Parts: sequence; C-alpha cells; structure tokens
Amino acid sequence: MRTAASPQLLALLPVDRTSGVPLHRQIYDGLRRAILGGMLRAGQRVPSTRALALELEVSRFPVLAAYEQLLHEGYLEGRVGSGTFVRAAPEDAPRPAAGSGGRAAPAGPRAGLPPRHGDGEGDAEGGLRPFRVSLPALDQFPRALWARLVGRHAHRLAPAHMSYGDPAGLAPLRAAIAEHLRTARAVRCEAGQVLVVPGSQAALRLCASVLLGRGDVVAMEEPGYAGARAALCASGADFAPVRVDAEGMDVAALHALGAGVRAACVTPSHQYPLGVSMSAARRLALLEWAAGREAWLIEDDYDSEYRYVSRPLGSLQGMDAAGRVVYVGTFSKVLFPAVRVGYLVVPPALWDAFVAAREALDLFSPTLYQLVLADFLAEGHFARHIRRMRAVYLRRRQALLDGLARHCGGLLAVHNADAGLHVATLLPDGVDDVEVVRRMAARGLAATALSTCYACGARRTGLLLGFGGSGEEAIEAATRTVGQVLRDVCPGPRG
Amino acid sequence: MRTAASPQLLALLPVDRTSGVPLHRQIYDGLRRAILGGMLRAGQRVPSTRALALELEVSRFPVLAAYEQLLHEGYLEGRVGSGTFVRAAPEDAPRPAAGSGGRAAPAGPRAGLPPRHGDGEGDAEGGLRPFRVSLPALDQFPRALWARLVGRHAHRLAPAHMSYGDPAGLAPLRAAIAEHLRTARAVRCEAGQVLVVPGSQAALRLCASVLLGRGDVVAMEEPGYAGARAALCASGADFAPVRVDAEGMDVAALHALGAGVRAACVTPSHQYPLGVSMSAARRLALLEWAAGREAWLIEDDYDSEYRYVSRPLGSLQGMDAAGRVVYVGTFSKVLFPAVRVGYLVVPPALWDAFVAAREALDLFSPTLYQLVLADFLAEGHFARHIRRMRAVYLRRRQALLDGLARHCGGLLAVHNADAGLHVATLLPDGVDDVEVVRRMAARGLAATALSTCYACGARRTGLLLGFGGSGEEAIEAATRTVGQVLRDVCPGPRG
Repeated sequence: MRTAASPQLLALLPVDRTSGVPLHRQIYDGLRRAILGGMLRAGQRVPSTRALALELEVSRFPVLAAYEQLLHEGYLEGRVGSGTFVRAAPEDAPRPAAGSGGRAAPAGPRAGLPPRHGDGEGDAEGGLRPFRVSLPALDQFPRALWARLVGRHAHRLAPAHMSYGDPAGLAPLRAAIAEHLRTARAVRCEAGQVLVVPGSQAALRLCASVLLGRGDVVAMEEPGYAGARAALCASGADFAPVRVDAEGMDVAALHALGAGVRAACVTPSHQYPLGVSMSAARRLALLEWAAGREAWLIEDDYDSEYRYVSRPLGSLQGMDAAGRVVYVGTFSKVLFPAVRVGYLVVPPALWDAFVAAREALDLFSPTLYQLVLADFLAEGHFARHIRRMRAVYLRRRQALLDGLARHCGGLLAVHNADAGLHVATLLPDGVDDVEVVRRMAARGLAATALSTCYACGARRTGLLLGFGGSGEEAIEAATRTVGQVLRDVCPGPRG
Repeated sequence: MRTAASPQLLALLPVDRTSGVPLHRQIYDGLRRAILGGMLRAGQRVPSTRALALELEVSRFPVLAAYEQLLHEGYLEGRVGSGTFVRAAPEDAPRPAAGSGGRAAPAGPRAGLPPRHGDGEGDAEGGLRPFRVSLPALDQFPRALWARLVGRHAHRLAPAHMSYGDPAGLAPLRAAIAEHLRTARAVRCEAGQVLVVPGSQAALRLCASVLLGRGDVVAMEEPGYAGARAALCASGADFAPVRVDAEGMDVAALHALGAGVRAACVTPSHQYPLGVSMSAARRLALLEWAAGREAWLIEDDYDSEYRYVSRPLGSLQGMDAAGRVVYVGTFSKVLFPAVRVGYLVVPPALWDAFVAAREALDLFSPTLYQLVLADFLAEGHFARHIRRMRAVYLRRRQALLDGLARHCGGLLAVHNADAGLHVATLLPDGVDDVEVVRRMAARGLAATALSTCYACGARRTGLLLGFGGSGEEAIEAATRTVGQVLRDVCPGPRG
C-alpha cells in the first residue's frame, strides 16, 4: 500500500479570498477537481485538516467542511489512526492521459545500445544472471566496511560538503586516484589532471563534447564497445571502424583512413570484446600516428586491474611523450557499478576545455561517495580489495574454462581469457550467436553475442562470457546449460 | 602525512624470470626507477615484502634483498609499526612533468560559466558565504534523519542495487517524484515519464542532445541563466536571446524570430534572475507558439517550491495539451546541491530518444541516493521539510528586505522578492555591478552581478542576493556591508 504523504496541495488549491466564493467551496472544488483529474490518486494520503489550514493560511473550519463533504461523497476516506486518503473515485473517473495524444509513456527501462555491461534486463535479478559481462563479484565486496565508511561520512556531512562542489572532483580523491594510477597503471599524472566524473560512459561523453564536433571522425576498434560509439558520436561526429588483430587496433589501417580523423579510441590493456592486449610496437605506432597528425587518443582502460596470464602492462598514456592521450578509468568493475564514479586523466592543454564541458554536463559529482572513496583508497582498502579479488577471479575464470572444456568441447573455442572479467569465445561458422544468446537468456543466462559488437561489415560470431559475478558452482552449472544450448543449435553429426 | 598504501606495483615491476637478471636486482631496479621517475612519491607506503612477494609470485628473499638495498641507499625508510615508505629521494631527483611540454596542469577548479548557483569559489567555505545565489539552508537540513536513511540503505545494499541500474531511474523514486509533481506542481505525468538524472544541469544537457543539433536555434530568456546556455548550446545549437518583461518571456519577440527556432527554454515559475512569474496569458501564448511551430518548450522549474507573496502557480507543463513541454526539476534547492539528483518529465513521443541519450551520457544514476530519496519522499519527510523551510526562508527573506531598507535605502531597489531563494535588486544607473560584487567578495560576500546574466546587448545592473544559506543575523550584518560598499562606489551627494 502506498502511503506517500504529499501535503503540498497549494498549486491545486488556488484559494482566492476576493472571489466571493466561500472558502470551503473553493477547497472542496479544488480537491474534487484534483481527484477527478488524476492529480490526486486513489490511496494517496491528503494532509490533515490542520496542516492544510496552516498551508492555505485559512482557519480550520472551511477545510473541515470541505473534507466532510468529500468524505460524505466518497472522494476521501478516513482510516483510523492513519489519516485521510483518496478513495477510488465513486464513478472511477477517467484520468487524463499524460502528454500528447494520450499515448502512455513506456515504463520499460531501455532504448538501443547493447552495452559492454551486458544486456541490462529491466528486472533487478536479471542484471545478476550468470555470464553477464563486466559484472564484478558483488557478493565478495566488503559491504560492511563500505557501509561503515558511508555511515561515517553521512553522519559527519558538513554544509561545505552539501553545497556545490568542485567540478573537477574532491581534492583528496583526485590525489588518491593519481597515486593509484601512477603506481598501478604507470600513468604519468598529477592530481591536478584528474577529473572525477560519473563513470567511464560520462568520461567518453565528455571526450565527445571537447574533442569531436559534427563532421569530425573518430576511429574506433572493430569489433568494439557500442556504448563508446554512442558516447563519442553523441556530439555529431562520425566513426570509422578499424579492425583489431592479435596485437590490437591495426595502425596501418588507421593511417589508411587519411587525414580528418581527429581521435582514436582504444582499449589497449584488454581489448573489448576480443580481449587482446595491444603490443608495445603497436602502442608506439599509435602514439606516433597521434603525434604526427595532432590527433587525440582516448585510452579506455575499463578493466585493466586483473590479468591472469602475464604481467599487467602499463598504460598507453604512460608511454606518451606528446600529451596526446586522454586516459579514462572507472570504479565500476573494481568496486561496483552503482557507485558511478569514473575519472579522466586530461592532458594539461585540454584541462580548461574539459572542466567547462564537465560543468555544462552535470556541474559536479555527488560528494558523499567521493568522500567515502577517498578514504577507501587512502586507507588501503582499495588495494586490498583488488588483491583479494584477483584470487576470486582466478578461481571463477578457471571454473569457466574447466566447464567449457567439459561441457562445450568442440562446440566453442576460447579466443582469449587473459584478463578482465570475461572470456571471449568463438562459435563455429554458421552458428548464429544472437540466437544462442536468446536461447541462453530463456534459460536464465546473460551472455553477450560477439557479432553485436561489430558496427559494420564482416562479423565473427561467438559468446562473451562474464565470470565475475557468479560463484564457481553457478558457473559450472551454467556451462552445462551452454553445452545443451549449443548442441541444440550447432550443425553436426547429430544435426 | 599521507599514508596511502597502493601496493599494486606490478606495472612498475615487469619481473621476467627468463631475462637472466637476478630477481632481487630486477625488483631493486624497478622500485628505484619508479622512485626516481616520480611514480612513487615521498611519503607513500610501499607494500610489505610479504605482500609484494605474493603479488609478484616470487619467494620473499629477492624482495627482502631489494628492500634492504633500497633502505640502505635511502630510497626507502622503515617506520616502526607502520611499514616501509618512500623517502624524499637522496638527491631529490627531478620528476618528469606530466603530459606535454612539462606544463603543470592547473589545479584550480573552474572554467567559464557564472552559474546560477553563485560564483563557485574553489574553497569550501567560500561556497557558503552570505548572498550566494541558490544556496539552500544547509544548516536546517534534517541531517541526522538523512544520515539514518543513508546508513540504513548502505547497510542493506543488495547486489541487485550494486549492479547496473535502470537508466530511467529507480522505480519507487520515479513514482514518488511523479506523485509529488502532480500534487505540488500540477504537472501532468505518470512515473513512466520521469527520467532521474544527476541534477538540472544534466537535464538541460540531455535536452540539447535530444532536441538541439548544430544549426538549430534555441530561444532563451534575456537576462537568463548562463549555465542553461552552456548546456543547451553544447551540442552545437545557437541561441537567440528573447527579452523578459514583467510577464516573463516576450512571446511576440519570440514569434518575431521566425521559423527555425526549435525550442525555447523558460523559467515560468520564477524567472532567473529577475524573479517574475510568467502570466497565464503569456503561458497560453507560449504554448500556442510551440504547438503551432512544432517547437519544444523546456520548462526549467529550478526553485518553484517557495513563494512568499501569492499562491504558487502550477507548472507550464500542466497547461500543455499538445505534449510540447519537457519539464526539468531538481532536488538541489529543496534538499542540498551535493545530492546531485534532478529529473525530467518527458513527453511520451520523446521518451525513447531521451533514454538513449541518457545512456550515452552516463548510463544511470548512483543507486544509494535514489533509494534514500525514494524513502525520504514516500515517508513524508520531503513534504515536511519543504513546509518547515518555507517558514525559515520567510524569516531570512524578511531579514534581507529589512536590512536592505535599513542600510541600503536609496542605493538599491528591490526588483523582485516574490519567490525562490534570492532577491533581485537594481542599482542606480552608472553603477558597475561587477565592481560592486568584486568589492563585496573582498569583504566575504558572494552576490551575483545582474549584468553577467545578459548574453548580449543592453544590460541592467543590479545584485542577486541569495538569502537561503545564511541565518538572519548574518544576513543583517551582510546588508550593512553592502550599504558600506554601495556608499563607496555610488555617485551621489557624498561622491
């Protein structure tokens, strides 16, 4: 039952002492009109007569008279001990449709893009299904510790932290991020270059605002992340797909695009979706391309914290002597997505433009989580959490690889499982990965079809299988289901 | 002292067992290089030998040997009971400059726009100075209650609420906002039309993404809100200033702009900055203009909750039969700015486009504050808070008006004090309001100069004096200072 009390009826009750209409009649009319018009809904609490009288600055008598009439006519009902409520209207009057043409607004959550973070089903539980890409181990997050930090800062919240904040972010958080990035990712940066934003999506959107206007071209990895395409083209830029091979983005193909390419967006640490890590030679070639053309490189380092088969590589940004790299990172994968904190490391020459664009975008980030995060980093919890998660993800990844070998042998090839939170797999020729994903979804699994990561042209088919969000047993069971689905759809001896 | 522990040194320590170089030497070299190169900074904690050995997957001996050498050479220092730290390097080696050309990134917070929320000084206290525009009574916010709600939800935080959320917002919050808007603002809406975004700035930015491409024209109030101009023109649109008179935006002047105006942005409840409320006749004319031209109206209802001299007016959106109004609201003024929650009420025909743009912008809003806000509204705290604040603001406004009459008589005319959180005043001809504001700032006050709200052409000069953020005594004292400043700068008998 909805018990929301919204006693601010002033806008609905334009009481006018000079109109000659008795006050109780004006109040009665206003409330009745509001109920019949759907502005007040069945089950909604109305203010007490005393509160409404105060609000309207009238005596309580006309309000009592109006309520009595409305109760009598069945528009309102009193419930003992809990107040007065709108009743389902006697004649259940038609409600005005919202907006134009009476078409109801769709209540459903989503429009277009197939995001890197999975298929984003509307229901909350759907968002946690096995194989959802980019979902971290939420069950392993130190929630009690986090809640303690949140509680600590919520109770201490000073007016200075409730007011308008610095668009660049809270100074201690920026310092902690800079230190983390220098150490863990070999990013060359000062705190003064760190811009705190609500996630890597917003970071990419800002890159579009600052770097990419209508008619500009941004080179993007093919296959790549549809969410990055949506963000980077949102200011009217066009994108040019550039193929990815075993060393990352093909820089020769990038050169072949000619002049007019203003920026290239890459995921050098862990290419999304294929998983390859860009070779050193390719990195140098890319930096040379950018310096030579005075183009910008957007390094989307979305989940580089975890590598399983070799040493982590430093960032591309750290190799850049020319200040052409804008570095993008996020806490969504290392903490949890709903924290909505990401960051940019901005070349000094672009700083003012980025801060202005950030202010035009959303002024600044919520302060509470910035305070909490700053402590979480500075007190060492963050580093500890990453270390602990590495062991967790190693086990989950192994469970996935073992399960695939056991249940899907010959039906699916592991393409890359070196890093991050998902394994990229390839399906045999002729198998429709979208259909496989559809069938998996019907059985409660949430993989992403590789072919949907291509913007155009020739597509490889495969499954992107997230392993971060589920325990080993769930993963093993899920791989069994994948095997069954694949045997149903794959042509073969049984077909 | 900074004690941040960031033990993730893997990127700095590319230990290679096949290189022939002893492990302890590789570790020593890597750490020394990192310290001299500025990737590890003086005062920064390094991991324990045990933790680093685990991380590098080597035995502890080579790590111990490397640390011993670095301690001996003065690169590291041990502090009893608290670990090992980087020492100020023996020769205090030069650090590589970040980014290009060695130019340090500016650490300062802000670029361009003179925002509606005041002058946004970098220092936290500066943000709370008397007369800051749009600052609510942070000292009166029910912080303990709020902290309790935050703590409750932080402790309960379920994985489903840590994962990726609905870009439209949390369902209970959308329902509560819709109910509030229907009741308090006479907005005609269903929860399915409510899009939760990080503040009204982001809402305006989204309007630009969806409605305003390069070459489009958006009509804006003159004088108006520079932040809205920045947001609405961020996708390449041009703006056309339209003068504001005693009834609000001059719709005849809007018509005179001819075709090609795709949208008009208005503040009908409380014009920013002049304070007038748009007349009913003007509202109808504006709606007719939009319907006839198939143009959009953006209703920025940024602080309509408080009116002091007449009944609050309903929203423009609620009078719109044609579905041409996009309604924008925010919790910044009724709760506190750092909560960063605002909302749009979107006409059904635009819903999909807005959700897609919102996803491209920043995916979704942080979940915790949405949960807290939903409770705050549903449990009636919100309505109670607004009611309580109305009395507080009445007192503060009166203190301001009394103080101005007492200390600034004849030097300053109150133009409008009907609503909202600021009083618009006019200065005598020939007085430079920017200079007055500069002198006020030097004396610890934070007013906004009216002339800076004009985008072009003839400017009136005056002071926008926020009264929300300070108590009556502070306001009285501040008006005395204003009087002194004005007597210094105004030409007159004493001049």
